[in-house]
Amino acid sequence: MKLYDISLSGNCYKVRLFLSLLDKEYETIPVNTAAGDTRTAMFLKLNPRGQVPVLEDHDLVIWDSTAILMYLARRYGNESWLPRDAIELAMVGQWLAVAQNEILYGIARARAMLLFKRAGDLQEYQTIGTGILEVMEQHLENRDWLALKHPTIADIACYPYVLLAPDAGITLEHYPAIQAWIDRIKTLPDYKDML
Amino acid sequence: MKLYDISLSGNCYKVRLFLSLLDKEYETIPVNTAAGDTRTAMFLKLNPRGQVPVLEDHDLVIWDSTAILMYLARRYGNESWLPRDAIELAMVGQWLAVAQNEILYGIARARAMLLFKRAGDLQEYQTIGTGILEVMEQHLENRDWLALKHPTIADIACYPYVLLAPDAGITLEHYPAIQAWIDRIKTLPDYKDML
Repeated sequence: MKLYDISLSGNCYKVRLFLSLLDKEYETIPVNTAAGDTRTAMFLKLNPRGQVPVLEDHDLVIWDSTAILMYLARRYGNESWLPRDAIELAMVGQWLAVAQNEILYGIARARAMLLFKRAGDLQEYQTIGTGILEVMEQHLENRDWLALKHPTIADIACYPYVLLAPDAGITLEHYPAIQAWIDRIKTLPDYKDML
Repeated sequence: MKLYDISLSGNCYKVRLFLSLLDKEYETIPVNTAAGDTRTAMFLKLNPRGQVPVLEDHDLVIWDSTAILMYLARRYGNESWLPRDAIELAMVGQWLAVAQNEILYGIARARAMLLFKRAGDLQEYQTIGTGILEVMEQHLENRDWLALKHPTIADIACYPYVLLAPDAGITLEHYPAIQAWIDRIKTLPDYKDML
């Protein structure tokens, strides 16, 4: 497998972390957005959205971090990472949605402003980010994992940018349940740090 | 089933449309955001994110339009709406991600500014919106449906806000393949208009 990757991208880290948890070997192809790597004809053929991560598995090309997590879970993981049952699938789907909405458009965008000088409305992004952290904190007060009684790809999808909230100017010190959840993820077998 | 619903919400229309395609009966509970309905303790207990749609099915409560589509497809639909196969699932997942990212944060937000006087950066949202319409147009030039050779929940998830692009100040006249795809969706058995 080949992963088109930016080391500081939380979306790429979702995939690297999950590949590690699944104990899958893969080759990393570093991508440099600033150098225009994601706008080349070659790259846009892989992913017309012009974003990392992109995964190549033999002849198959998959873009989007959430779609890649779904693929890897179903193809290489056991049932527990992405259940087939309708209700359990919906519970996972809810937190996959949070990862793609408030976490990405709140925390990740605030981080991109502070870390990579992107344009935007920092206060708006931080408000969205702290809003969803409040929701997660309450949710995790009496639960170990976001969606089910065991880790799922919902935890993997939400983890990177929550872990990186301090980069977005959002402290996690008021969120003890989230901190405990982060610690639980760090103890998963074959856990891998971002860098 | 009960659907907490706002008639003008594209996210709610995704669920109403899919329930109709599945020929499922349900009760609609109209929600008025302006009157504070989504911030009451009762509603936040159903959905701590304070958003519609929320679906109640017997004792089960599911929030988030994408999670609801996944649930309904797996529980009441046939395999074709949301395949179990890893590769097909990933193809659907890619376009579910587009629905939650560029379509929501581009087209839907531009529409919310123009229609509901929400704050934001209209030009940024319209740029994101037209960017993803270009991608969809190219993708649909030699395909009937977004993810697979038949309609899936990816089509249902992307459809409402693409259909509503004119409300966002984005004309669809330059996108004949998207228009043909819209027409195909409208001919699905039990198709239901937004209003």
